[in-house]
Amino acid sequence: MPETWARISEGSDFPPENLPFGVARIGDDAPRVVSRIGDHVIDLAAVGIAPDLTAEPTLNALMASGRDVRAEISSLLAGAPREDALHPVGECELLLPFEVADYVDSYSSIHHATNLGKILRPDSEPLMPNWRHIPVAYHGRAGSVIVSGTPIARPIGMLAGADGAAPSSGPSRSLDIELELGTVIGRGGARIAPDEADAHVFGFVLLNDWSARDIQAYEYQPLGPNLGKSFATTISPWVVTIDALRPFLVEAPEQDPPVDAYLRAARPWGLDLTLVVELNGEPICTTGFAGMYWTFAQQVAHMTVNGASARTGDLIGSGTVSGPNPGERGSLIEITWRGRDPITLPDGSTRTFLEDGDTVTLRGWAGGNGRPRIGFGEATGAITPAHPPAF
Amino acid sequence: MPETWARISEGSDFPPENLPFGVARIGDDAPRVVSRIGDHVIDLAAVGIAPDLTAEPTLNALMASGRDVRAEISSLLAGAPREDALHPVGECELLLPFEVADYVDSYSSIHHATNLGKILRPDSEPLMPNWRHIPVAYHGRAGSVIVSGTPIARPIGMLAGADGAAPSSGPSRSLDIELELGTVIGRGGARIAPDEADAHVFGFVLLNDWSARDIQAYEYQPLGPNLGKSFATTISPWVVTIDALRPFLVEAPEQDPPVDAYLRAARPWGLDLTLVVELNGEPICTTGFAGMYWTFAQQVAHMTVNGASARTGDLIGSGTVSGPNPGERGSLIEITWRGRDPITLPDGSTRTFLEDGDTVTLRGWAGGNGRPRIGFGEATGAITPAHPPAF
Repeated sequence: MPETWARISEGSDFPPENLPFGVARIGDDAPRVVSRIGDHVIDLAAVGIAPDLTAEPTLNALMASGRDVRAEISSLLAGAPREDALHPVGECELLLPFEVADYVDSYSSIHHATNLGKILRPDSEPLMPNWRHIPVAYHGRAGSVIVSGTPIARPIGMLAGADGAAPSSGPSRSLDIELELGTVIGRGGARIAPDEADAHVFGFVLLNDWSARDIQAYEYQPLGPNLGKSFATTISPWVVTIDALRPFLVEAPEQDPPVDAYLRAARPWGLDLTLVVELNGEPICTTGFAGMYWTFAQQVAHMTVNGASARTGDLIGSGTVSGPNPGERGSLIEITWRGRDPITLPDGSTRTFLEDGDTVTLRGWAGGNGRPRIGFGEATGAITPAHPPAF
Repeated sequence: MPETWARISEGSDFPPENLPFGVARIGDDAPRVVSRIGDHVIDLAAVGIAPDLTAEPTLNALMASGRDVRAEISSLLAGAPREDALHPVGECELLLPFEVADYVDSYSSIHHATNLGKILRPDSEPLMPNWRHIPVAYHGRAGSVIVSGTPIARPIGMLAGADGAAPSSGPSRSLDIELELGTVIGRGGARIAPDEADAHVFGFVLLNDWSARDIQAYEYQPLGPNLGKSFATTISPWVVTIDALRPFLVEAPEQDPPVDAYLRAARPWGLDLTLVVELNGEPICTTGFAGMYWTFAQQVAHMTVNGASARTGDLIGSGTVSGPNPGERGSLIEITWRGRDPITLPDGSTRTFLEDGDTVTLRGWAGGNGRPRIGFGEATGAITPAHPPAF
């Protein structure tokens, strides 16, 4: 660990090698850009670090700038003690870290896509014919991206009637989570080649793509998911930079068949992360990110190949991260096989999908075990009852 | 027509009853909010009309404010001549009028949805079972919404191989248009009832949802349209306000079966507009908007029923506007029945889909024939060749 005057507890997600970025309200001050070390928020503008970029209520200007602000924070932490720059994280309000431009959600785990295919279309080949040729994705609702800790009101939407009855609106009865990693664009561009991804990607967040499976099932033909997803997408308050994660870039799994030229990369773009889902404090999924079939670099290339511009603040969800084994499934629809196999919690209660009062927390990190631990903290949300319909 | 000192030519889209809003660069000045009368742009801030809202590079602050700026413009036009406020529109650069928050595109013409069903799924019931129960929609790419006049580079994307061959990327060979009306949100909200739509809708734009049918056909299962649409969406530079269009609100067609409570309205939300598509100056579609099955009020209610917030700058496409007759089809895939029935242009050339160099112009208006004509001007774009792939 680099020498520093700051105190960091053993196993912290936030050693001096991490230095993620977020936005916090400290006391009664206006929200501004901060970093984090151990259990403390670093008030960057207060110690003169890039105040033109950090005395801002979002990360967008900093992300667009390309300026290496982390190097300046490293210097601060290696120099003379500046305890006045640090505030206990528990005394700060962590806010949505950036203004989301477009939110695109992918479908890049072959295990997740295969599981969903088996569950939803049991009589067909699980993977669609296009799945191995393009990193399939759709646009989600940018305005519904919220920061960890925001309550999740159970969504209302149109639900199929039983036994051929007419559909009717009501609270979702199959509210689910999706464990994802979100890629955040810093500098924009169009027609970005995979091997140029790190010139445009600023960093990553934990992302929970809350999903109402029944609303989605009713609505999704032929235009894809909409209200089944658009009520809420939770992200971690900390954007972990691609620079902090460079030591954990690894070769992604081999792709078969080989992909089209615009999706080919010479550099390794897999990311060796561990991701965990907790339901009411109990781990229900522990999986790795390195096995994702499609990389974030390919997702960025695909999103821009048609001429569309990537913009500062674009957020690209990885799609649900599931591994090959049962304990590695990143959604309840997979874990319970759409309700067939309920899970039992330590209090003896069972779950197929989420109940009001449940809390779901995502965690994620790279390293540990002798290497620096580069963590994301958490992305959490508690389910509240549906709002009664006003009409 | 109200008395005014401003000159307006007969048949103009922009009489004193219209007063739409846009954003223009006048000379070397910074872009700011303007209105329009006849062939002139009205520089609002220069004559002291709501400068806190109009000395801005987008309409967003004005749209969020709820202030009746049109009434102030009416007073200006009825008072002492202020020719210094007017600039010939040809001498101004018209810019994207608002910052798009989320862009949602609907599918609300029963004639369009039926035609597409017959073309794409000839062996099935044309309308999906959900179509008459919810105004089906998906999220499009907000960052690709551009103003009329911006060239449209032919998109590149993954195309199916012929006769079972592997897919490969290349320029779209079936580039199409979709004639739509876009609804623009002024004041945000959640769980908006249809009859409250006009408290949130600021106005409307012409919208061309450019579509690459081949890219879309390859990608759209199971998550819906993405790169086949996300390269460009053209809107008119003028946002015509809901206040200007109130005299043209009419009863929408009866819905059968009756819709769910959250989609029911007591007030009339159909809009009696005429819409036209020109290809290289030749009209290829003239249709009405009043026959749309789902209203913009229902689209807003549906978008927010699950708890999602509407935000200032949200843009909701109506979906392609097609009428029951062949001359009323708002897309080339319908006009040429996916290429089966090419159209012949006055120069003797034929088209199934768009060719490089083609120009498509949408026009639209309410009234005329003795009533005030409330027009949108145009939304136009010319096709340029695909950018050669860089990799």
